[in-house]
Amino acid sequence: MDPDAVAKAFVEHYYSTFDTNRSTLSNLYQDSSMLTFEGQKIQGSTNIVAKLTSLPFQQCKHSITTVDCQPSGPSGGMLVFVSGNLQLAGEQHALKFSQMFHLMPTTQSSFYVLNDIFRLNYA
Amino acid sequence: MDPDAVAKAFVEHYYSTFDTNRSTLSNLYQDSSMLTFEGQKIQGSTNIVAKLTSLPFQQCKHSITTVDCQPSGPSGGMLVFVSGNLQLAGEQHALKFSQMFHLMPTTQSSFYVLNDIFRLNYA
Repeated sequence: MDPDAVAKAFVEHYYSTFDTNRSTLSNLYQDSSMLTFEGQKIQGSTNIVAKLTSLPFQQCKHSITTVDCQPSGPSGGMLVFVSGNLQLAGEQHALKFSQMFHLMPTTQSSFYVLNDIFRLNYA
Repeated sequence: MDPDAVAKAFVEHYYSTFDTNRSTLSNLYQDSSMLTFEGQKIQGSTNIVAKLTSLPFQQCKHSITTVDCQPSGPSGGMLVFVSGNLQLAGEQHALKFSQMFHLMPTTQSSFYVLNDIFRLNYA
């Protein structure tokens, strides 16, 4: 398994899901998952998806600029660090963002998101 | 121990050390430490500090905009996510950057940097 390929596949899956049907992102989180969204701390799949689906825009499109990944230690986790642009419907300019995910292995040979930190990069 | 206070103290220590004497950052890394710097992967304290000290500028000043942190799982680690500006001597405009650290506990009740990913946020 090539970690860079896994990271890239995860990132493409995550943002295409976000941009088409945010509510189904719940499959990627568990009760122990944490999201820090623009400084606000949220825990658990249900609360995280409630936050993501309540964001004040209907349509958006993430464009990825960079994806970096590293193994996170003996638990078999993987850190994924993303930078990119977020275009909101009706807005003239895209917003720059950075986001990191800590993916942990599940018993089904897949990954879930244990840690998720998102920040817009204001000028 | 307040994780946010630990993260903030680490970040202040890291960047003030970077801005005054980069070579002494070696104390914060171990042989297992990984740095991904603008996509380049480097492993081990010696190689990481060789990279940081070979960057093509003598003087710089990091200004921190945001610091977010989360516990990274059962190993007692902590994820620290930073955004800020990097002013290089002689340059008119500061560069925006994002960086994440995965801090792991040492046997001396301190932390070392297991994972470090750095990216400039170009327009």
